[in-house]
Amino acid sequence: MLELHIGNKNYSSWSMRPWVLMTQAGIPFTEVVLRFDSFDPDSQFKRSAEALSPSGTVPVLVDGERVVWDSLAIAEYLAEGFPELALWPEDRGERALARSATAAMHSGFGALRSHFPMNIEARLPEIGARVLRNQPDVVADLQRLQALWERLLARHDGPLLFDRFSIADAFFAPVVMRLHTYAVPVSPRVASYMQQVQSLPGVQAWVAAALEEHDFRPFEEPYRQAPDGA
Amino acid sequence: MLELHIGNKNYSSWSMRPWVLMTQAGIPFTEVVLRFDSFDPDSQFKRSAEALSPSGTVPVLVDGERVVWDSLAIAEYLAEGFPELALWPEDRGERALARSATAAMHSGFGALRSHFPMNIEARLPEIGARVLRNQPDVVADLQRLQALWERLLARHDGPLLFDRFSIADAFFAPVVMRLHTYAVPVSPRVASYMQQVQSLPGVQAWVAAALEEHDFRPFEEPYRQAPDGA
Ligand SMILES: N[C@@H](CCC(=O)N[C@@H](CS)C(=O)NCC(=O)O)C(=O)O
Ligand SMILES: N[C@@H](CCC(=O)N[C@@H](CS)C(=O)NCC(=O)O)C(=O)O
Repeated sequence: MLELHIGNKNYSSWSMRPWVLMTQAGIPFTEVVLRFDSFDPDSQFKRSAEALSPSGTVPVLVDGERVVWDSLAIAEYLAEGFPELALWPEDRGERALARSATAAMHSGFGALRSHFPMNIEARLPEIGARVLRNQPDVVADLQRLQALWERLLARHDGPLLFDRFSIADAFFAPVVMRLHTYAVPVSPRVASYMQQVQSLPGVQAWVAAALEEHDFRPFEEPYRQAPDGA
Repeated sequence: MLELHIGNKNYSSWSMRPWVLMTQAGIPFTEVVLRFDSFDPDSQFKRSAEALSPSGTVPVLVDGERVVWDSLAIAEYLAEGFPELALWPEDRGERALARSATAAMHSGFGALRSHFPMNIEARLPEIGARVLRNQPDVVADLQRLQALWERLLARHDGPLLFDRFSIADAFFAPVVMRLHTYAVPVSPRVASYMQQVQSLPGVQAWVAAALEEHDFRPFEEPYRQAPDGA
């Protein structure tokens, strides 16, 4: 049985990608949560993660002897292992485009990521507005992201980025959650894409579990106060 | 004929990866240089890059109708198109490992990247020492990077990360150049890996062309003064 090691569902944007991919595509797996106590070298999390892989990060996919320890490498591994699921588009040009968008997400949008950390249970519209006023690099990232989605969506009638659900949608799902949390204003087409992603059963399952965690982690919370009793 | 659009060879670390990959693997291509005048929205570079792709970045691979616009997506596209070259290791577990290392490079090591921008013609040992004294996040990136290389190299006798030259080496080549420019102290095993990468004909060809550019770009130069007459 495939084993997917992940972090806290409320916070771990990298973990969300393969989890949503596998759940949505119907690939069976066992989930192992490495709770984020902290990312300090002597934290329980880092000890467990470093015992698993050279990166000391989650997600990690364990398949018998094989250990795959980056979300995009995991996606490629699954695409190879389950060709019948067509996790990438089957047309070679479409696949190259899907990989371009996915790998660009993997390597870029750093300002958006750092100012808008994923926090599924939070609603922070005032923070969102303040960041958009003060951080031109976040605005630039958002423009690039939305322009990319618009361009991909304009090419066909479907509700998702490619003809059917693909790795690309799974990789953008955490960003959809960020835009939602920080109430970023978007075009109608982008709003409808965000809606579609949030209504995928794989995404809904992740979000439902994230909302049940109630595990406020101060080092993942630049904007909120710890709730009473935490 | 495949067409690879790249930036200045002295500076463009992302462009270096597919160029080295194709050159080293013997894949014929035509090179198109989009000179870095600046990355301002109305620069010649951005106009040309945005005409090519939604990201407005280099590298971009053009194959007839198909446009692939991220270095990792380009590598996957080439791996698919030239299976006989085995650009990824042929064993599935080894391939998963190579993809993990490569995708981790693609998405991570942000502190190292921003404090040690690629600058092939420069030798900046004092800057290197200063950054290592003042930037613990760069030190942490370097430790992770070296630990990863050590672990991959310790698994076999070969001089490169996997049994033969692979996409992973091409993706780490720009980092090798950074460590060289900033004279970062490394272990003997890492030093010998760096030596091997720098002696690959594909890397030597890139470096030779970079040294011939003499095209000082102030916005890519946090540490050097413009030469007289520039
Ligand atoms: N390139 C990795 C990045 C994974 C990553 O950074 N994960 C975070 C949690 S969301 C982590 O484990 N951080 C621990 C640390 O940075 O020490 C991937 O795509 O899987
Ligand atoms: N994810 C892209 C990143 C490429 C990238 O950022 N390239 C730089 C040049 S080395 C660029 O074109 N920058 C222009 C900009 O950021 O506007 C890739 O892997 O190809």
